[in-house]
Formats: sequence, C-alpha cells, structure tokens
Amino acid sequence: MKKIRIGIAGYGNLGRGVELAIRQNEDMELAGIFTRRDPAGVKPATEGVQVYRMDQAKDMADQIDVMILCGGSATDLPKQTPEMAKYFHVIDSFDTHANIPQHFDTVDAACRENGHVGLISVGWDPGLFSLNRLYAESILPNGKTYTFWGKGVSQGHSDAIRRVAGVKRGIQYTIPVEEAMDQVRQGNQPELTTRQKHLRECWIVAEEGADKAQIEHEIKTMPNYFDEYDTTVNFITEEEFEANHNKMPHGGFVMRSGMTGEGEKTHQMIEYSLKLESNPEFTSSVLVAYARALNRLAAEGATGCKTVFDIAPAYLSPLDGKELRAHML
Amino acid sequence: MKKIRIGIAGYGNLGRGVELAIRQNEDMELAGIFTRRDPAGVKPATEGVQVYRMDQAKDMADQIDVMILCGGSATDLPKQTPEMAKYFHVIDSFDTHANIPQHFDTVDAACRENGHVGLISVGWDPGLFSLNRLYAESILPNGKTYTFWGKGVSQGHSDAIRRVAGVKRGIQYTIPVEEAMDQVRQGNQPELTTRQKHLRECWIVAEEGADKAQIEHEIKTMPNYFDEYDTTVNFITEEEFEANHNKMPHGGFVMRSGMTGEGEKTHQMIEYSLKLESNPEFTSSVLVAYARALNRLAAEGATGCKTVFDIAPAYLSPLDGKELRAHML
Repeated sequence: MKKIRIGIAGYGNLGRGVELAIRQNEDMELAGIFTRRDPAGVKPATEGVQVYRMDQAKDMADQIDVMILCGGSATDLPKQTPEMAKYFHVIDSFDTHANIPQHFDTVDAACRENGHVGLISVGWDPGLFSLNRLYAESILPNGKTYTFWGKGVSQGHSDAIRRVAGVKRGIQYTIPVEEAMDQVRQGNQPELTTRQKHLRECWIVAEEGADKAQIEHEIKTMPNYFDEYDTTVNFITEEEFEANHNKMPHGGFVMRSGMTGEGEKTHQMIEYSLKLESNPEFTSSVLVAYARALNRLAAEGATGCKTVFDIAPAYLSPLDGKELRAHML
Repeated sequence: MKKIRIGIAGYGNLGRGVELAIRQNEDMELAGIFTRRDPAGVKPATEGVQVYRMDQAKDMADQIDVMILCGGSATDLPKQTPEMAKYFHVIDSFDTHANIPQHFDTVDAACRENGHVGLISVGWDPGLFSLNRLYAESILPNGKTYTFWGKGVSQGHSDAIRRVAGVKRGIQYTIPVEEAMDQVRQGNQPELTTRQKHLRECWIVAEEGADKAQIEHEIKTMPNYFDEYDTTVNFITEEEFEANHNKMPHGGFVMRSGMTGEGEKTHQMIEYSLKLESNPEFTSSVLVAYARALNRLAAEGATGCKTVFDIAPAYLSPLDGKELRAHML
C-alpha cells in the first residue's frame, strides 16, 4: 500500500500534535516539516524527518499528497492556506467563526485556479461540534441547540489576562454551568444569558509588589472578555502554576433539545461531548483523519474548497465500505 | 420551491412517525401512504392524504420522489425494499446488524438494475450511533469504543417475555449500568462483560391464578435474552401497566476513549448520547432528514445502495452550503 505523504506547515503545539497523530495511522507518513524559523533549530519528534524553510515547500509538490497547515487563525492561515493551495491539497483548522466565509472564498479561488482541493476549519469547534449541530438540527427541526465549552483553557482569554499590568503568569479556564446544562437536558429549552452558561476562572502569578486587588478588578471588568461573566481570580505561586496549570485541557457539549410527534409534545434529546486532556493534540487527530478524506477527494479529481459538512464520513476511515458496513454500521 | 414528495410504505408506529416528521419540514410533502391492510380502514393523521394498497405503488412512480419503507426488519424490509427499488428511490431503517451486508447487496442490485438510489439502515442504531463510532474511531485510532443502550424499551425482549405462559402484559427496559459508564469516562478502558454493561427490568401483568415465581424463573433463565444479565421482574396491575408503561422511550451512549500524543499518554474522550421519549418518532425524524439527502443524491444521478457512511452531512440540511458555513460551522 502506498502511504499518504503528509506535509506539516508550522511546527508549534498543533504541528507537533499532527506529527504524533500521523504515527498512529499506518496508511500515512510524514514527508516533511516546514517552518518559518531556522530549520536547523527545529528538532522533530520523529527520527529521520526533514525540516525545511516554509518557502522550500513549493519545490516539493511531487513529494507531498496533503499539506496540513498548523499556523494560527489570526494572521498565519489567511495567507498561508491560499498560498500553499497553489502547490498542494491543503487542510487547516481556521477557527475564527466570523471570518470563515471570507477564508472559504479565498481558499476556494486558490484551489480552483490550481486544480487542488482544500478543506478548512477542521477541528472540534469549528469541526466536530459543527457537524453535530448540523446533524441534530436537520433531524429535529423543531428545537433549540446549545453549545457549552469547557472545562478548558481559552487561549484568547489567557492572553488577555497576561496583558494586565502586574500579571507575570496567567491562565483562564472556561467552565460550563452544570445547572444550565441540566435545565437543557430536562427539555425546558431555556433562554440562557452569557452569564448563565459559563463561568470564567483565572489563575494568576502576580509580579512582586503588584496590586492584586487592582489586577482582579481590571480582569473582572474587562469588556468583551470578562464583563459579561461571573469570573473568579485566584493568585498562586509560580511553583503551583508550573505544577497544576501546564496542560491544555478543553472540551464541551453540543445539545439539541427537540420536539416531535402529534402536537410536537414528545421530547427528544441529542448530546455530544468532548473531554480532552490536550486540545491541540485532539485537534491534530481530527486534522489527520480529514487529511485521509482529502487525499481521497483529490484522487477522485475534486477541486475547490470544502468543509467538514461536505465530506462523507466513510472518507475518514482507513476501512473500505464493505468492512464498515459489516463491522461498524 | 418544488417540495420533495414522500411516500410511506407501511403505516405502523414508524410510518405514523414519518408522517408527523414530514409536517415539520417545509420542503417536503406526503404524497401517499401504502399499506397491506385495507386502505379504507386506515385513517392518516394528515387531512387529504390518500391511502393506497401496497401493490398500487408501482403505478405511482411519477408521483413520488422518495419512498420511505416503514416495515419490520425481520420479514418486511428484506422483501419490500428491493421490490420498491424497482420503482422508487428507497430508504429504510433495516436494523438486523448481522444481515446488513446481505440486505445491502440485494437493495444495491435492485437499485442498479432500475437506475435508482437506495439508503438502508437509517435510524439511530444502526444510524447515528454508527456514524459516531466511525467518526470517533477514525479520529482516535488508538482507543476503545463502547455502546450502551437505554434506558429504553427493547421490543425483542418485551416480545420474549410476553411469550412466557401466564404473562398477560409485559414490557422490558434495558438499563445501562452507571458505574460501567463512569469507568469508561475515566479513561480506564475496562473490559466489560455483558452483565456489567446492562441491567434488564421487566414489568408484568400476570394472568389470574398464574404462578408468579415460575414466570420470574422462566424469564431470568431464558437463554440469549436474559440468562447473561441481571434481571428484575416486577408484577403490577393492569391499571398500573396502562398508566406507566404505555410509551416507547429509548436512547443510549456511544463512547470512545482514546490516547494521543508522545507515548500515547494523553486521554481524549468522545461521548454521544440520545435520550428519546419516543424511539419510533425519533427514528422517523432521522429517516425524513435522510430522505432529503437521498433526493439530492438522486438529482445528481447517483445509483445503487448507500448507507449513512456515504452521505455528506450537508445533504441532510435544507440550508445551502453558504448558509451552513456562515451560521453552523
């Protein structure tokens, strides 16, 4: 069997996660890592894997079946995904929800011009959570969908608290409110405010001599990030921070509460949840499974940009249709 | 907009559920109900809908876009789905897991011979649970999948207890064992026996003068159905039975516990669950959403038999790609 040759563009937490996920899939191999740093300073986890400068990728079109873009959504992916689509079939985890339509159009144009196929916004939200919203709303048209996130680290909120004066280290956990989730599960279809759905929990190492009350006040009243939430701020030592807050757990819940039957009085509840010890490693695993799907689409001659909505589930699996029907249906 | 014209073949609990689900979808209409009973004796819930003899369907090929087969898996669907595939694009909820490959081949041949497309085993298990097993196993190749069912009525087990001498009325609930599910959630990847995963709870109205101890013994030792489980048998009055056991709730859980990362030491948990007040109404809702997908496949000229694994999620939704990307991704 010819293995699917994967390229990784960007070697941070996500890129490293992709590298490790490729090892778990026998039908894939890592064909190269591309970085904006000096390749000499990058040490892959996999022996024998070459590290290249990002601009060397374009000369390797015949050596890579799928390029997985592992940069950030703010500035990297809007440029890198369409650029790489000139040379490769591309997949990314672009997660700025509001800008997805624009990113889609850019990647779609680049793919079509170059006869490639692209797949954007692959991960868990956007990604698996989106799929679950779509399936559930299609099946239960009369209903209400709820998404809860956490318990997990929000990178954006952690960055925000680290910008507050006097904060040396800081991390923020988003926590879904159990009572709100239970209300949804009971079929009440409640209207929930932002404050009723999630709590925000901050763990801070303060600079020496910093005004902790002032830090706490600044965080709790920060517009867009914290002012609409019930927020707790905890000050801890650097040792405690190192020991207990060095991981990137995350997860969440997608729930659809719907009504069916005569007079629409029968309650039907669909719930999907993730409990992830490592957010980037899980996102990487989703990317790698969809890289398989992308490779199949490319083999069929597909072009243009796709999303998880467009991919038949069977394309994610290394098993063929007959095996899937016999063992997994 | 031209509505999708749906035919219902078989008008029991499932057929009636499909009828009610069609009303919840503005892009569909019920074009006719087909029954093996005397049509004069069948009263649809929807005003103006015609009821026909099953054998009249073949003359209505130009009036129906998708035929939903609502018969039973034991004897109805193995014959009816391929027969109807001569005249229509067909969809069924065939749920005898062991016979799916054979049913697939039969329906596939009938569809191909007649230029139609078919979709079998649509519902929640097989169906949505199968999808979740497939997605989760593709994403987390190193892991273990668990399916728990209930709390809910098992039709097969209820039928079995009603065949015991002295049983006037009877119903059986399958109940997942909470402790077993919690073990799975904790990432222990336990090996669970049949007995450790589910309990069976029976509610019986005995015939007058029946030997209750004998009934209980016969049920608890019944091979294949109860002997491998911890079973409780409760005797109640007919009034109590009528009041509390006249519904068909069901549901269950699909869980994937997987490991990722360096040395595969990071635990990642995916869980999907359904809590259904009415099993047949929910299965009907799934059938109707997939009827939309089938209609699109047919419009694209697809032929042959498919399963839920082959259907891109976007095909289930009345929204177009642009709307889905903007609002649901």
